[in-house]
Amino acid sequence: MSSSTTIAVDGMGGDSGPVVIVPGMAVALERQPDLKFLLFGDEKQITPVLDQHAKLKAATTVHHTDIAISSDEKPSAALRRGRHGASMWLAIQAVKSGQASVIVSAGNTGALMVMAKIVLRSMPGVPRPAMAAIWPTTRGQSIVLDVGANIGAVASHLVGFAVMGEAMARSVFGLKRPTVGLLNVGVEEVKGLEEVREAGRLIRDSDLPLEYGGFVEGTDIGKGTVDVVVTEGFTGNIALKTAEGTANQFGAFLKQALNSTLMSKIGYFFARGAFQAVREKLDPNNNNGAVLLGLNGIVVKSHGAANVAGFASAVSLASHMASNRLIERIAADIEKIGLINKEDKK
Amino acid sequence: MSSSTTIAVDGMGGDSGPVVIVPGMAVALERQPDLKFLLFGDEKQITPVLDQHAKLKAATTVHHTDIAISSDEKPSAALRRGRHGASMWLAIQAVKSGQASVIVSAGNTGALMVMAKIVLRSMPGVPRPAMAAIWPTTRGQSIVLDVGANIGAVASHLVGFAVMGEAMARSVFGLKRPTVGLLNVGVEEVKGLEEVREAGRLIRDSDLPLEYGGFVEGTDIGKGTVDVVVTEGFTGNIALKTAEGTANQFGAFLKQALNSTLMSKIGYFFARGAFQAVREKLDPNNNNGAVLLGLNGIVVKSHGAANVAGFASAVSLASHMASNRLIERIAADIEKIGLINKEDKK
Repeated sequence: MSSSTTIAVDGMGGDSGPVVIVPGMAVALERQPDLKFLLFGDEKQITPVLDQHAKLKAATTVHHTDIAISSDEKPSAALRRGRHGASMWLAIQAVKSGQASVIVSAGNTGALMVMAKIVLRSMPGVPRPAMAAIWPTTRGQSIVLDVGANIGAVASHLVGFAVMGEAMARSVFGLKRPTVGLLNVGVEEVKGLEEVREAGRLIRDSDLPLEYGGFVEGTDIGKGTVDVVVTEGFTGNIALKTAEGTANQFGAFLKQALNSTLMSKIGYFFARGAFQAVREKLDPNNNNGAVLLGLNGIVVKSHGAANVAGFASAVSLASHMASNRLIERIAADIEKIGLINKEDKK
Repeated sequence: MSSSTTIAVDGMGGDSGPVVIVPGMAVALERQPDLKFLLFGDEKQITPVLDQHAKLKAATTVHHTDIAISSDEKPSAALRRGRHGASMWLAIQAVKSGQASVIVSAGNTGALMVMAKIVLRSMPGVPRPAMAAIWPTTRGQSIVLDVGANIGAVASHLVGFAVMGEAMARSVFGLKRPTVGLLNVGVEEVKGLEEVREAGRLIRDSDLPLEYGGFVEGTDIGKGTVDVVVTEGFTGNIALKTAEGTANQFGAFLKQALNSTLMSKIGYFFARGAFQAVREKLDPNNNNGAVLLGLNGIVVKSHGAANVAGFASAVSLASHMASNRLIERIAADIEKIGLINKEDKK
């Protein structure tokens, strides 16, 4: 691991397939020349693109398969077909067998989660895997989890998410003591879900090496009040997509307004560098890569619509987590939590 | 009602009290000169401001009380004190007694919900009241509910929210057939909460006069895919505040970027009209007023931080709903739903 990291890549996922994936891998390799790749997919599509990237070609072993999971395939159907050697399935298997330390796919999220859970299985002591997203904030970046691996969560699941998210923040952001908050509502009368309150009590009463920041509200995510925001998957998914929608909306309003008068068009001309900077800060391609945590292997999900730079971000994130021994960190922390195992059995 | 609408106003709520509330009422009265007001609060604070607004003074009856609920008071404590004649309590009572057709308060949300539920009680057939927010979208405006009146909801509650939100959209937006969607997650494997799926089935199988648009995701709220977005209160509150946070974040990024170079400052100078337009579109003061639906009386909650224009928006929204007979519309629709009553008893 210290010498080089091998990354398994599903070559057939995403809206554009190999024509985005392969150049994205090449960009990531430029940044980190010691990476090795196992690339799974249709040779007829992959080889022409790979031939244009000599360095990447030298670092990559291609495994041909005809089977690819489509983005609109139901996970159950994808699983039945995928078991016979889909690119996604084979890439996950490469992590299972130890040939690769992490897998990256831009394919069907539901299928990826189902296959990864079946092939890699949950780490001992982890009650539920969770999907973690990196969220741009006014202070920098935070991690939000679960953004949709599960629907519904009891207190012990949330504590598990807190532990995994904290380990990821140390690994990805290089923080010594990341702060962790539980997402809740601020209305006094109701003061949030019982599960969230209970999770807060469990964390406070535990000996977990967690910098617990208490409850945070929806507005706190964008502020970056804490480094890790913990929530149940339904709410997390809605929050993530609502933020995405609001950012798009803001961009659309601004575009419209800047096109409305001659003065505003002149203003845009002068300030276009500034707009470009904001666009980049909020561009999902620059924060690309959600991570499925809690399995015996790291699974990175790239946006299906990611461009070359976006897929490169996901690959770099994957290699970063692999080389920082995220799994070992989570395993060490999870061992400290007897409470999760006990809780989960009820 | 056709001649004039009387609005009960809690004169002591919000961050600034009468100095914002009274001028806000005056602005709303300019727009709609036949309004009448019952204003509850401390005469010593109210009179000096009211004296500066002759027309408003003529349209307003002030009821003095020394008791005011503070914004950080717990709802239970607020209720104990409030029963002895707090401005918020008295204003709600004015709706109960029929002296006013709607109440507006910028005060403590939790206290307002508790008091309103106790004084006004749920309408017959309404399983749960809900807090509805008006949400600016790229297409115009939508209604999102529940944004925090309840935590947790079974399917029949969600159907009730759909009916009430739809009636509000007809009343406030003047739409003949508003579309209604259920907020859900798009990940295929999990496909959302059982309660949400069940609510979808109930609506589809019912004879409700609803233009049902199926499931929508977080990104659809800002797009305005449907006119009414229905969700459970925990998730709705998180979504609302996450969107608020994202909008603030976008604004902060933009401000920083526009201040970063001489070119961008020049650009800002020319395009400042455009920025102002975007700011106004997203300014919470221009979409101010959440509505507690499902009680025997309309309760409008203004943002505590609303400015004069913001409080005026909340007053105008209140009068609009009162004059459009929202309660009667909801009552008529609720009567059509046997299913809610049956469901709710289990």
